[in-house]
Formats: sequence, C-alpha cells, structure tokens
Amino acid sequence: METRGAGAAVTSVDVMVDGTHFRLGTASWAVAGWRSLAGALSDVAAMGAEAGEAYLAVVVPPGSSAADVVALHEGAQALAGECGVTIAGGDLAAGPALTVAVTVTGWAAAPDAVVGRDGARAGDLVGVTGALGASAAGLAVLDGRAPADPAGALAARHLRPRPRLVEGLGLARAGARAMIDLSDGLATDARHVARASGVRLVVDAARVPVGAGVAEVAGALGISPLELAVTGGEDYELLVCVPPGAPADAAGEAADITWIGTVTDGPAGLELAGAGELAASWRGHDHRL
Amino acid sequence: METRGAGAAVTSVDVMVDGTHFRLGTASWAVAGWRSLAGALSDVAAMGAEAGEAYLAVVVPPGSSAADVVALHEGAQALAGECGVTIAGGDLAAGPALTVAVTVTGWAAAPDAVVGRDGARAGDLVGVTGALGASAAGLAVLDGRAPADPAGALAARHLRPRPRLVEGLGLARAGARAMIDLSDGLATDARHVARASGVRLVVDAARVPVGAGVAEVAGALGISPLELAVTGGEDYELLVCVPPGAPADAAGEAADITWIGTVTDGPAGLELAGAGELAASWRGHDHRL
Repeated sequence: METRGAGAAVTSVDVMVDGTHFRLGTASWAVAGWRSLAGALSDVAAMGAEAGEAYLAVVVPPGSSAADVVALHEGAQALAGECGVTIAGGDLAAGPALTVAVTVTGWAAAPDAVVGRDGARAGDLVGVTGALGASAAGLAVLDGRAPADPAGALAARHLRPRPRLVEGLGLARAGARAMIDLSDGLATDARHVARASGVRLVVDAARVPVGAGVAEVAGALGISPLELAVTGGEDYELLVCVPPGAPADAAGEAADITWIGTVTDGPAGLELAGAGELAASWRGHDHRL
Repeated sequence: METRGAGAAVTSVDVMVDGTHFRLGTASWAVAGWRSLAGALSDVAAMGAEAGEAYLAVVVPPGSSAADVVALHEGAQALAGECGVTIAGGDLAAGPALTVAVTVTGWAAAPDAVVGRDGARAGDLVGVTGALGASAAGLAVLDGRAPADPAGALAARHLRPRPRLVEGLGLARAGARAMIDLSDGLATDARHVARASGVRLVVDAARVPVGAGVAEVAGALGISPLELAVTGGEDYELLVCVPPGAPADAAGEAADITWIGTVTDGPAGLELAGAGELAASWRGHDHRL
C-alpha cells in the first residue's frame, strides 16, 4: 500500500501455473486468462478496495499459437469488462509452461480504509458471502469424478469465478474489521485471519452455506457436503469479521451474507463447532496449515 | 497509469524465466532475484517516474529449497535497498521452471510528467546514458566464449545490472520527450521509439559509447565492438530524446549522457550512420523487428 495525497493505492499480485492452478485441456486459454485475473481481483475485493488497472505477465510454452495468447487475453478481458477494470499492459515471455502473473492496482479512500486480515476482535461476527463448495464440485464434474449437474452451473463456477468486488467494497465501507477471500477454502483461510488477528474464530458448521448441487457431488465423492464446502477452495467468496451492530451486520441479508460464527478470545485458530469428526481431523492439520 | 488527486501512479510488470532470461547455474538464485527486479525498475526509470513498491511473484520448480527462495528474495532486496524501493509483497507457486514476475509501482508528479516512447520530434537530440555492450560481453565471458576481464567487471554488469532510476527521473524533469530502457539493445529499442513517435532516429555510429573491455570480448567473438554494443542488449541504460536547448541538453555531460544523434522526419525507423555493412544488415531486419 502506498499513499500520496488523500487516497491509498493497493497492489495485488497473483500467479497461476498450468498443472498447479489449472490444467490446459480441462481449462481453455480463455479460462486460464479469466481465472488468473479473478484470483488477483479477489485479493483486491478482500482489501475492500476499488479495482483499477490490471497487468498480465504471461509465459507461454513451446507450440503455443498467437491465437492461444489472444484467447487468454480475451478471457481476461471478458471478466475485466464485467468488473470495470482496465487491462493496461503486461509482458510476454517464453517458458516451459503457461504461467499467468496478474497484477491489479486498486484504490481506497484512505490508508485506514484498506481492510487487512489482522483486525478481527473478540465479539465480532463472522460472515461469508454467497455459498461454498461449488468450485470444488465443479472441478470434480470436469474431472469426471462426479456426474454433471443438468445446467452445468458447477463447472461454470469453477471455470469462471466472479470476484466479490462490490461486496468487498460495501463491507469495507460498512465497518468490516478483517476480510479474506476464500481461495484455499474456509478451513484454511479462516485460520489465516485468526492467526493474523490473534483471535479464535468459532464457526457453526450447521450455518455454513453450501452451494446448490454440492451435496450431490459430495455424495458421489463419498464425503460430506460440509467437507467439500470448507476445504474445496477456489470459491473466491469473502470471509468477513464485523463488529456487532455495524451497518454490515444489519445489511447482511441484503448483501448475500450468511453469519456463520463469532470471534472469541482463546487460542488463535479456527473452531468448527458441530462438525464432529471432520473438525477433529482439521485440528490435526493445525500444525501444518 | 492511473490518476487520483495530483499525482500519477505508474505500474511496470516484467517476467523472467529460467532458460529464457537467465540460466540457473550461470546465475545464482540471488542473481535471478536481482535481475528480475532490475528489469522492472528499468521500465519505471524509462518512464521518468519515481519507483515505490515492488512485488515478486515467484514460480519455483521441483527440488527447490526454502534457502533458494530466500536467496532469490535477498538478491532482489539488495537491489531494492540500493534503489530505495520497498518489496511489499508477492506470491509463490509451484511450476516447472523458476519464473519471476516483478511488478513495480511508481509515481510521477502529474500524468503529463510520465515519459512515453511516442513523444520524439524532428530536431530532438538522441542520447544514451552510460556505455553499451558490457552486459552482452559479460554473458560471453560467463559462457566461456571469451576470456574474462581481470576485475570481473563485465560479468558483474551482466549479473547485476543497475537500473537508471536517478537518471530517468532527472531526464524527465529536464524535458525528455521520449525514453526507453535498452533491454533488447539499441538497434531494436531505438526502433521502438522511432515507430511509436513516427520519426526517424539518425544515430552516428562513431559516437555510440562502447563499454570498457567490450572491444576485447568482441574481438574474441569475431564481431565488431559496435555490433556487440548496439545488439547485445540487457545493458539497461536509457535512450532519450530531448529538444535542443532543454536543460537535459546542457546537463548531458554531468549526467553521464552521450549525445549520439538526432531525430528527423522521414521514414520511421533507425538509421545508423557510418556503420557500413552492419547498418545494411539491420535494414534487412526492419520488417521483423
């Protein structure tokens, strides 16, 4: 974050690599462009900032065509257009695997208007936007590990996630104290907030919103819908901590937010109440996450 | 470039890949970090902007250690410290080859203070900072294609280039109309300015400053010192066009600038006067450069 004059400029950088973050084949070049930009924009959303310009640094493997690179940029441009973001430049180089490093600049009204991960305090409410698990379910469908939903909505959620820029800006203005975008999954990302803030997030498993069609895919995979929702990742929804009584609290329903828990003092970490064995297995992960 | 309030924020993105822009082995992880940051900072220098923050998105191949990644960041930090730049964040991912995508944000006093490539006009003087060819000569030394210079200065110029941030800012303030950093080499980069500006750059071959020790390496390679100087690339010096009589003109000598030619009307491109067959061979490249 840099400040000159009244505002604060924020910068988000996100790199995605074929084979790690997407697989060409399952994903088209256009999808690779869209998803890479979505990942960087989602970080800006979680800062509660307004996105401005995006820059794409693309490494293309041997055998790629100019049409491939154009398709990648068109995929990114389609999302940029939806979000009012200008793709203002970038770089292109040769290398062994398609790699897309996206930089997004953003603006907040003032330095203290930028929301971090370290501001959650005991007594805050914990909320998430939207519903969880659809992206991971969509990947399972695309991989042939689960039958497709009739409308193809799950695959679409995986291939073309929509960063929550409007919601992030609204939550920041309404008093959000900490935010993070759910890229790794609630089980991991909520811990990042808990540790950065030095607090405990107590989430009620029964209140975690599970996306439409996720239960069917979870059934095909032999796991619980909750597990897919909280560990699947790549939903790019926002997890937010707000003081009770803040405007965001009252506006939650209108803003597509579900309040799933509270912040408490106690050992920094995530407690998933009511999740039974699943929660116990996560506690085992605590040391390496 | 984005504007809020009085200033203009600029952003530069530069990606370097092992095997394309450097070779681990010849280059250490620390050198990869330094060079990647230098490339992005050099773009900011050519805009005549003040560098602010840098962000490193790093893709590391299998078998890399945490110490490798730390060394890369330390290499970048060493240059950042010299330049007064803060490395403010980044991203880390797994992939097949070391890839470093660097984003640098910078600031100019106003939008029209940012120097582009399209402002050169007939009558302008053409100058370059420093001397050319040392980086390419250093690479030849490192590759064993030429004997090393006693002090190892050529290899150092290749491994740890220093972006001309101070000079770029000074030239912008002193009236530079167009600038570019010499990453591909003067023969290529001068053409970028010529075409963007719709003018002809006429450069006097005899006045191109050739770095110390470059002639010896060129001799070992069987080419002329001038060829190494204008086609070698990666010197990260600045080429600048200024109106005659501008403060930059008078200040040239103090600022380590050599005036090598003039801007004229005529077919957009580069004319290297007095270079004989070398210039003729470049004209043949005109269509693909």
